[in-house]
Order: sequence, then C-alpha cells, then structure tokens
Amino acid sequence: MSTKAKIATIGQYVDQEVLLEGWLWNKRSSGKIAFLNIRDGSGFIQGVVAKEDVPEELFALAKGLSQETSIRVTGKVRAEERSPIGYELTVTGIEVVSRTEDYPITPKEHGVDFLLDHRHLWIRSPRQRAILKIRAEVIKGMRDFFDKNGFTQVDPPILTPSSAEGTTNMFQTEYVNGENAYLSQSGQLYMEAAAMALGKVYSFGPTFRAEKSKTRKHMNEFWMIEPEMAYVEHAENMQIQEALVKHTIKHVLDNCPQELKAIQRDTAPLERVVNEKFPIITYAEAVKILQEKGHDFPYGEDFGAPHETELTNHFDLPVFVEKWPANIKAFYMQPDPEDNSVILGADLLAPEGYGEIVGGSQRIHDYELMKERYAEHGFDESYNWYLELRQYGSVPHSGFGIGLERTIAWICGIDHIRETIMIPRTLYRLYP
Amino acid sequence: MSTKAKIATIGQYVDQEVLLEGWLWNKRSSGKIAFLNIRDGSGFIQGVVAKEDVPEELFALAKGLSQETSIRVTGKVRAEERSPIGYELTVTGIEVVSRTEDYPITPKEHGVDFLLDHRHLWIRSPRQRAILKIRAEVIKGMRDFFDKNGFTQVDPPILTPSSAEGTTNMFQTEYVNGENAYLSQSGQLYMEAAAMALGKVYSFGPTFRAEKSKTRKHMNEFWMIEPEMAYVEHAENMQIQEALVKHTIKHVLDNCPQELKAIQRDTAPLERVVNEKFPIITYAEAVKILQEKGHDFPYGEDFGAPHETELTNHFDLPVFVEKWPANIKAFYMQPDPEDNSVILGADLLAPEGYGEIVGGSQRIHDYELMKERYAEHGFDESYNWYLELRQYGSVPHSGFGIGLERTIAWICGIDHIRETIMIPRTLYRLYP
Ligand SMILES: [Mg+2]
Ligand SMILES: [Mg+2]
Repeated sequence: MSTKAKIATIGQYVDQEVLLEGWLWNKRSSGKIAFLNIRDGSGFIQGVVAKEDVPEELFALAKGLSQETSIRVTGKVRAEERSPIGYELTVTGIEVVSRTEDYPITPKEHGVDFLLDHRHLWIRSPRQRAILKIRAEVIKGMRDFFDKNGFTQVDPPILTPSSAEGTTNMFQTEYVNGENAYLSQSGQLYMEAAAMALGKVYSFGPTFRAEKSKTRKHMNEFWMIEPEMAYVEHAENMQIQEALVKHTIKHVLDNCPQELKAIQRDTAPLERVVNEKFPIITYAEAVKILQEKGHDFPYGEDFGAPHETELTNHFDLPVFVEKWPANIKAFYMQPDPEDNSVILGADLLAPEGYGEIVGGSQRIHDYELMKERYAEHGFDESYNWYLELRQYGSVPHSGFGIGLERTIAWICGIDHIRETIMIPRTLYRLYP
Repeated sequence: MSTKAKIATIGQYVDQEVLLEGWLWNKRSSGKIAFLNIRDGSGFIQGVVAKEDVPEELFALAKGLSQETSIRVTGKVRAEERSPIGYELTVTGIEVVSRTEDYPITPKEHGVDFLLDHRHLWIRSPRQRAILKIRAEVIKGMRDFFDKNGFTQVDPPILTPSSAEGTTNMFQTEYVNGENAYLSQSGQLYMEAAAMALGKVYSFGPTFRAEKSKTRKHMNEFWMIEPEMAYVEHAENMQIQEALVKHTIKHVLDNCPQELKAIQRDTAPLERVVNEKFPIITYAEAVKILQEKGHDFPYGEDFGAPHETELTNHFDLPVFVEKWPANIKAFYMQPDPEDNSVILGADLLAPEGYGEIVGGSQRIHDYELMKERYAEHGFDESYNWYLELRQYGSVPHSGFGIGLERTIAWICGIDHIRETIMIPRTLYRLYP
C-alpha cells in the first residue's frame, strides 16, 4: 500500500508513490492526457494521467470524473517547476469514493447571493479556502504573540446582565432565571477584572451587534481579541499593538505564501507594515490634515470611511490617531493630564482603505473620578463590580480590542468582510 | 532604576535588584521583621523587610500595608530553598500606588454565594488564579496538538436559524431581520462542512444550553472544542482523542507545576493517564460490568453520574464506551455495519468520578441513508445545506466535541465546574 500523504507536505515524498484522499476540483483533458486538479483540504495539486502510460479503464475513469467527486488517488510525486506548489502527481490509480453530479458551483461566474446561499459548499473553492486558512494563521500569529509575551488567555462571559454603554444595539434573550440577558459586544470590562488577577490577559471570542447595518465593514456576529494589561499606560499600550500587528502580518507572510498567491494579494504593502514604524498623530492633527486636503470636517466628530482612507493614504502605513475628544469616546477612558478634554487612547487605522482595526485606551483607575463618571451616566448597581476594581487595589492599566475580521479583510486585501468567516451573519442572512 | 521583573521569571535575576509591580496579598510581621506575600498576576513571592536593615519609614510602611494595596516594590532577588517558587525578595523600597481598605475577601472562610457575588475579586485568590492559569494552559495544550497535526481552526456561527436536535433547550433571540435565532449548542454540523473544505478542522468557542440544571457538571454557558476530520473513521477518531487528552495533560503537568501545587492536586493519577493506554469497551460490555457490580441498569438507557463513576473506577483510567444503541444517540451517527442497532461512536469518561468529557462518532456519509434520517425526524428545508454535504463529494468522516470546563475540572481535581471559568453562568447567576 502507498503511504498516505497530504498535499501541503507532499514535498517530503518526491519520487515516491503516495495515496491522496480528496476530491476532484476540476479537470482538463484531450484524447491523450487528462490533467486532474485534486484537492484534499490541505492544498491543491495537479494529477497527470497519460493515456499511453496507464490501463485503458483508468484513463477512461479519469476523463469521466465530475467536479467534486470524492476520490482516493495513488501516484508518484514529481518535482515540477511550472507547478504553483512545485510538485505534480503522476497518477497510477483512482478509486471513486462517492460520485458527484451537478455540483452547484461551477467554474463559471455566480452571483454573490447564490454563493452565500451555498456558503457550505463555496468554502471549498480555492479562493475561499485560502482566506479561511489565512484567518486561522492570523489567529495563530496573534496567539503566539500573546503567549510569548506573558499574557494569559481568559474567556469573558457572552451572556451579560446589561451593558454600561446601553443595550439598544444588543441581542436580547431570556436567561434561565427569567431575567433579561444580552449578548456581549465586548468583554473588556471583565478583562479589566482579569488583568487585576493575572497581570496581562487576552480574550478570543465572538461578539455581537444587533445593528441593521449594510456596510462592507460590519457583521452582526464577529470575533474580537481583547488584551488588558495591569501597570501598562497609554504609550506602551500602542507599542504593544504595533508589535502585535507586525508579528501577525509577518506570521502570515511566512506561513501562507501559497494562500496569498491564490487570492492574488500584493504583499509589498504588507512587507512595508512589518518593516516601518507606525506614525502616531493626535486627533487634532488628523483633523488638520483632513481640512488641508479639502475635507469639510469639524473638530469633535468621529471619522467616516473616507476620512480614515484619506489619513492612511497620507502615510501609506497603519496610523495611530490618539487623544480623541473625551465626549465622543467611552466613559472609562483616562483623561490626558495635560488636557482633560481629550483621552489617552488611540484608534489604529489600517492602510489601503481599510481603516479602523483596533480601538484602545488607558482606563480610568482613580476611584473618585470613576464614581463621577458613574453618576454622570446614571449606572445602576449591576455595574458595582466594575467600580469595585477601582476601590480595591486599583492600578493604572490599559487595553485594546482588535477586530479579527477587519484585520483579515485588510491582510487578504478583500472588499467585503463577509468572506473572512466561514458562515457570515449579516442583515439579511441567517442561513446556512 | 531597577529592572522591571515578573515573579514568574524572577529566577533570571538572582542577586540583582528588581522592580515588581503588583499587590500585597497578605503579610505576617513581628517587631523585627515583616513578611510580605506579594502577587503580580504572574505569581506570588515572599518579600522580606528586616527592621535593622531598612530605614525606619520603610519598615513602618511595610508593617502597615493592608491587603490588596497596590504597590511597586524594589528588592534584591535571593535563591531560597524553603520558598515554594525557589526565590525570595529582600525588599529595599515600597511605593504605594493605591491604598485598599477593607478588602472584602479576607483570609478567613467565606460562603460560596458571597465569593461568587465577588467573583471579579475572588479570581485574585491564589487557588482561583491557579485554576484560571491551568485553564489557559489546557487551551494552549489542545491548540498546540491540533496545530502540530495539520488541523485548521474554523469558527462556526453562534447565531443559528434552528437546531437539528430541537430548540427546547436553546436560548432564543430576535435576529436583525426579525427571524428567530438561537444560540448554538454545538458547531458540529457546520464543522462537517468545514472538514469537506479544509480536511481536518477544529473549533474553539462558547456554546449555550438553556437547561434549568443545578448539578456540579452543568453551566448554561460553556466552551467546547469540536474537531472534525474528512476521511477519518471511528477507530482513528478514538486514537486522535486519546492522543489529544494525553498531550493536553502532559502539557499541563510540564507547564503548571506551581499551579497544581497551589491547588494541592495529586498528580499521580494524571501521570498514569499520560502513560497508559485507554481501555475501549462497548456499551453492551459496560452494561454487563454495571450489572455485575450490582447496579439495576437496563440495556438501552443513558448512564447517570454513578454509572460513569463505577465504570471509570473499575479501570482507574479514562475509558471509551463505544457502540451505543442508535436510538439514544444523535441522528447523524454512522450505524455499525456489523449491527446497525448500534452506532460507530464513543463517549470518553474521565476517571476519579468526573465522567463524560468527550462525545464523538463517525458521521453518516451515505446520501440515501441521511435522507431516510431526515424523513424520520421531519427536518425542514433549513437543514438542506447539511444534507447537501452528502450529495456533493461525500466522504467518510468523524469528529468529536470535548467539553473544556469538564476537562479542566478533572485536571484540577475540583468539585464544581463553576470554578473553571472566570465568570460562571449557572441557573441563578447572571452577575457579575
Ligand atoms: Mg471609530
Ligand atoms: Mg452522556
């Protein structure tokens, strides 16, 4: 029997006979030769069946294979310069596991609604598979960074009693005790409690927003990584974000060369991100740049997509915009001691038109100041626990949230965030 | 200025002066010496302040420090055999960051309701911190296993249109388009779609059950890891589970010696798990063992806690129980070709009274057989996509789900699953 092999690591078996278990993705054939594009989940390889070298039945079988028929293929691995993966398979045997007729996603063009209706099958296509593979490596790159830097993973709850920032845009459900519960849109407040116990922590989990939004940058269910660090202040918080983003992109460049090729990603802008220092500008400086470029943009408003694009095009790198007006940012952000109308926090905007991928800040640690904020916002006792973090053993601390899907969309250079996750949840789409 | 150090890696700084940023956990003092138990999130260390060696003010400050006061401490690191971590700190300076009065969790005994009401603070206690640290290493150990074995992480959706196994025990919410949505209690069906695209995949995420259950083994929100593998059949599925459990336990033994000591876990039973082969028995054999041990247990029922305990005590190792009656298991499980009244699946029961931690099976891949199951269960078109996985490119495949919190409870040897997660969600508890 031949050795079972995976396409991803087939280079170990040059000139040997192997068994691949996979599917026929597509084929080209003439009277004399059939080229089979075989996939096995780990990658794609070309299998060659030459009429004059194989039994008649095998050539006939190869020529007759339909798309997505599942097959066990034996063959000899050959180094082949012209192959995108460097290897081809000289096929010596094919066993059909299950014959497929009329696979819905053919090599022709399909509309995006049709493809999303068939998302459970669409993910088999080379481009979609490559994006999901890159997604997994983005996650792995981030986790490696945290693990190497003394962070502990902590999982905050998804079901929460309410939200300090209001429940209007939250999914509601009835908890088992009859109370209202809401699906978390950020684990940050809990992560602050965790940082006081474990020093440096990060979460990795789904978050939910019940907004009826139809943009290319929003989904109703998305994943966030939320680190939180005791004894870390604003400047160091940004340094850690920059190191994380550089590490993650380098990890993807190193580990996904074939996937980046499969989606035709120009990697030059990503290499630049790894090698150059990210600029830091204040919100006030950002407003000045926008006004100089002709935008009618008043100090005190949040940026829209065109403003973020303008700013990152200006630098052609990820840009930190820090020291935002306090009144357009969250209640827990630490005021700048030099000007308490602005906060010690920053958004990180990704280049190439992608915009905000990280929001972070130093958090208020002073008990009296936080009590003032509670009074201003009228928080009830369901948030006593968060206030107690300032009452008992309070320390300066900072954290941030990085949106997984937005980061992946940028790294992959794709238009719509819905392609960055296996099963996207958007306004009109709860199926499959 | 002294080098900033972390307690976890303080061994690098023997005979050097370092700065620790942390909290006073507790202290003992006499007229001549104060012993400070200092924590910094990465660990605990004893700081020694001898009256005759330090300025009067420093000794007075040290003696007066209250529990959970946040402090920056400078001192010289000394190797010290009697220390549980091997090092002590000869304190040379203390800066109080924030004074804490009347920290609610004192070294005396507290009731569990009081502690759960203060869970945001309770996690700072050595035992709770150790459990959360072990949790993080359990996750890391599992992920390392999957990464090394060619699996790709895929994140299935949490919001789902319905459940093939009924929605009675699911949390319901209104989706943004007005449809009913349910919080996933398993990502398995989606992971089967992913396995057909990527070969070997695993998920890591929260799952939800709206059961009004009060046992020590149930929470309403818990985390699962769900691997799914194309071209893998029942026997190999169990081999992979055994390798995963062994790898995870070895990882924790290697990386958490101090945390296991902090929670007084006897590690001998865990070492046995790493080194010995897990027994595999059929459900029928399990029933016979139970009957021989005097249980009045009829063939065809599911095990309760006492039955699982009896079975694992019999072997003193994790035990696979395979080939369950089809009618008490899920619709998608592959019938045994030798006896189609039982299925090619197994539960893995953990020893020491912990019971089921994994449920897995080979999945039905035959299109016609799956259509029969659909007809029997009356599935509507919202599950068409799952049936299509059998229509297009179907292959034998298997998978399993491992409950994170149950696995952690076992590894830690703790009584109640609520201590295995930062913020537990149980029947009466949606706060903090
Ligand atoms: Mg913004
Ligand atoms: Mg069971």
